Amino acid sequence: MKIDGKPYRSIWRAPSGEVRIIDQRWLPHELRIATLATREDFAAAIQEMWVRGAPLIGATAAYGVAVQMAHDPSDAALRETWHILHATRPTAINLKWALDDMARVLAPLAPAERADAAFARAAEICDQDVEINRRIGLHGLKIIREIARRKAGRRVNVLTHCNAGWPATVDWGTATAPIYHAVEAGINVHVFVDETRPRNQGAHLTSWELNSHGVSHELIVDNAGGHLMQHGEVDLVIVGTDRTTARGDVCNKIGTYLKALAARANGIPFYVALPSPTIDWTVSDGLRDIPIEERGGAEVTHVQGRDAEGRIVSVQISPDGTPARNPAFDVTPAELVTALITERGVCAADETAMAAMFPDLATPRASSRP
Amino acid sequence: MKIDGKPYRSIWRAPSGEVRIIDQRWLPHELRIATLATREDFAAAIQEMWVRGAPLIGATAAYGVAVQMAHDPSDAALRETWHILHATRPTAINLKWALDDMARVLAPLAPAERADAAFARAAEICDQDVEINRRIGLHGLKIIREIARRKAGRRVNVLTHCNAGWPATVDWGTATAPIYHAVEAGINVHVFVDETRPRNQGAHLTSWELNSHGVSHELIVDNAGGHLMQHGEVDLVIVGTDRTTARGDVCNKIGTYLKALAARANGIPFYVALPSPTIDWTVSDGLRDIPIEERGGAEVTHVQGRDAEGRIVSVQISPDGTPARNPAFDVTPAELVTALITERGVCAADETAMAAMFPDLATPRASSRP
Repeated sequence: MKIDGKPYRSIWRAPSGEVRIIDQRWLPHELRIATLATREDFAAAIQEMWVRGAPLIGATAAYGVAVQMAHDPSDAALRETWHILHATRPTAINLKWALDDMARVLAPLAPAERADAAFARAAEICDQDVEINRRIGLHGLKIIREIARRKAGRRVNVLTHCNAGWPATVDWGTATAPIYHAVEAGINVHVFVDETRPRNQGAHLTSWELNSHGVSHELIVDNAGGHLMQHGEVDLVIVGTDRTTARGDVCNKIGTYLKALAARANGIPFYVALPSPTIDWTVSDGLRDIPIEERGGAEVTHVQGRDAEGRIVSVQISPDGTPARNPAFDVTPAELVTALITERGVCAADETAMAAMFPDLATPRASSRP
Repeated sequence: MKIDGKPYRSIWRAPSGEVRIIDQRWLPHELRIATLATREDFAAAIQEMWVRGAPLIGATAAYGVAVQMAHDPSDAALRETWHILHATRPTAINLKWALDDMARVLAPLAPAERADAAFARAAEICDQDVEINRRIGLHGLKIIREIARRKAGRRVNVLTHCNAGWPATVDWGTATAPIYHAVEAGINVHVFVDETRPRNQGAHLTSWELNSHGVSHELIVDNAGGHLMQHGEVDLVIVGTDRTTARGDVCNKIGTYLKALAARANGIPFYVALPSPTIDWTVSDGLRDIPIEERGGAEVTHVQGRDAEGRIVSVQISPDGTPARNPAFDVTPAELVTALITERGVCAADETAMAAMFPDLATPRASSRP
């Protein structure tokens, strides 16, 4: 998508061959581009959230493997890289998906062939992600178009949580792809953007990308969505996901579950936009079986922003020494999900429908961990 | 309650006769005491949230009337003061309750008698608030004690939203009063404190007061409560309220409704602690009839905290010019409320039970607006 009129992806290979990313820690205040040169750079970029969003984490890990293969294409290095990168974030399944995919492609090859093959496969994963998201957008567009028809042209109000926009993917975004398509189609769309504490991805990223594209939106605190839904101000919710189980339980950024409860209580459809690599076919009960990352308390006790002098600073909001709990994700049970918007179409969040839409994928995958 | 071992109320008359408050805008980082000398000072203190919390807003308004009566005890001044102070915040009913009460006491008196009577009545309102909250605490203690018994001494986990602690009242707090009593009774209690964006009263005030009293607690983002409830980490929710209708609909800080939905979905009791002046007997349908204050967007786009140099600063979290919506309260329908904890006892959130507990109050009050 575009920044100041110039098209960007969230990760790309420069003509020099270097892998570059937008360092998202500085958005929306600064657009900083970082070059990731070593496996350790990639691990840090994922763990410290220079990049985030399930699809982009996968794409970044794939390039991390490629960079390491250029440096040391041995079996040992391939194995080590899988483990080092896999350990960076526990919840997003795309990370494991991309690492398994790279291992599957590279393990059979002679070491001398691995670097080129790895860069080629990482580029394919990125291109596939872009195409998948474009298709998610087209399927989601049908839903928005139908609501616009029912509202006879009155504004369609979408609520979204966190950032499942293009900076969470390689391009287009998952939850935002239907919105971008709807705006292109001339539909009057407005987006309520959940701030998404503790890291404020809504305020930092979703507001920023919608602003960059001139999409009508308002930032709200995470607390406000229920009130807006009670008063008929939200027509549909679209969120992304970090991992969805084979029966449709949706693990996503902490707070998603609360919005799903409010949507259900107020008769508002709650959609989850996801590329198929985000489905973990080996897991059924999301509440029981998806590991939820607990991050440091400083993300809760502190907030990052730009001060009056224009500097990016972190401010402490609680008294010194306040203890904090910081679960980063929650699980929305499938019964609260109206439907999944995938690259193949809109699918009920239940085991049978999901298996019917993805018969080629819907068997427990053995890990190809090398 | 105590700050650094010294007992404070949130509003008091100094020996000199001046009315003093804790200026809560600077907590938890600085304890600043402000003197309110004119009606305009009182209006600003309420509107700009130097003081907040339904009971404290009422007490402050009462002293605001008293200060004006010392300056000009005329009928016109009494009427003007009612209107000026009433316009400061639209949602908390205690504001109107206190102003009506002052008018009821003062209007029949000769102007020369009004100042003394007003200060006396304001002091009574404050003392009544303290006593009411103490009693709320004792009734709430029974609930916590019963849960502690069922848990056989294992930690009782309370979740609270916003600050219905002693800085929201004159002393004790409403939602915190049962917690303080439980701690005094030797019950092992832990409090999950919702940050409460946009103004972070949880982080700024509830963390601070629990910290000051050595009550076990953890700060969480507003998004986290549902996840904790899903995993059995919350035994009960206790919140305050800014206005409760005659049938038990509860208007409280934005986001309360989302926690009530999560509590219901997970079989966790959801209690509302309230003094009877917070009940608006003239209103039944809270969603339809309680005006919800919409505050400025800057509270959403900016966050106040202490920077690395120890200065209290406001940082901007969104891009320049991001529009924001900022509804300050929401309404939790009575059917999501397990019970009300009042100064007279624990009461079901329905019209019949409330009228039975407050037969002397439960008739629509005519406004005594002078």
